[in-house]
Amino acid sequence: MELSEYVATIKDYPQPGIVFRDVTPLMADGNAFNYACTEIVQYARDKGIDLVVGPEARGFIIGCPVAYALGVGFAPVRKPGKLPREVVEETYEKEYGTDTLTIHADAIKPGQRVLIVDDLLATGGTIEATIALVEKLGGVVAGAAFIIELDELKGREKLKGTDYKVLLHY
Amino acid sequence: MELSEYVATIKDYPQPGIVFRDVTPLMADGNAFNYACTEIVQYARDKGIDLVVGPEARGFIIGCPVAYALGVGFAPVRKPGKLPREVVEETYEKEYGTDTLTIHADAIKPGQRVLIVDDLLATGGTIEATIALVEKLGGVVAGAAFIIELDELKGREKLKGTDYKVLLHY
Repeated sequence: MELSEYVATIKDYPQPGIVFRDVTPLMADGNAFNYACTEIVQYARDKGIDLVVGPEARGFIIGCPVAYALGVGFAPVRKPGKLPREVVEETYEKEYGTDTLTIHADAIKPGQRVLIVDDLLATGGTIEATIALVEKLGGVVAGAAFIIELDELKGREKLKGTDYKVLLHY
Repeated sequence: MELSEYVATIKDYPQPGIVFRDVTPLMADGNAFNYACTEIVQYARDKGIDLVVGPEARGFIIGCPVAYALGVGFAPVRKPGKLPREVVEETYEKEYGTDTLTIHADAIKPGQRVLIVDDLLATGGTIEATIALVEKLGGVVAGAAFIIELDELKGREKLKGTDYKVLLHY
């Protein structure tokens, strides 16, 4: 299946100069959505995954079917104030300023093998912070998966050697 | 399976007087998450569903595995400014003030049979707006499903006769 046919390209979004890759058409098409999730499931199946973790909100859309198909649970990584119980947090640098992500303090049991899933690997700030959150709770990052990698932005350097799977490169 | 064992109860969140039902422990447990999603899949399987629609962000966590298991796509309903292409929007009343939800204008093909999934049916504002968005695009709301219904808040009245499934009542 040619997944790129299901990615919309939007110029100058969210700001001038940015070319945004929108995967909502892929998610809305039953065959494309099923194919993409199943590719990630197959990547992860031999990794002994105990839990899938995904950052809000598009990470939920891909990560949760993968968790379901693997028969494991899902723990959301969210912006501050969105999770109702005790959290740990991680702040990371963005192009202008910083951003913070949180996870419930009891979301991961020490030693659990975690797969991190998101729609897009761009500059890598989100995945770097997510890896840090998993490791703060004693989890082992056993792999990561993305629908799209924007190769020029070198987010892969933030993965620091984590094994990962990408379905489409731009 | 006794799903209620996987729901955390938080008093006075997000504000004094509110008892918040938190389903993140259910999502994080592989067996409970799989059971809950599968119950909704079984409810929906004979309804000829073409597309699952869910409001951000917890609606994604349950709705996307259900879409995957049914072999159909998923269309997100999001707050304003979060979807990159042309949207339609719906504004609804909240206890204090109003809120607006959006969906991509091309997310639903006219006549498609839609299942709406969210974690919680409370006052029903979110589901009422989501039904309105689906119908604006010519979709047919063939059913709705929630993990939890807070019966006292009478959100079911906002469903206006839509067939729906709930896994836990409080």
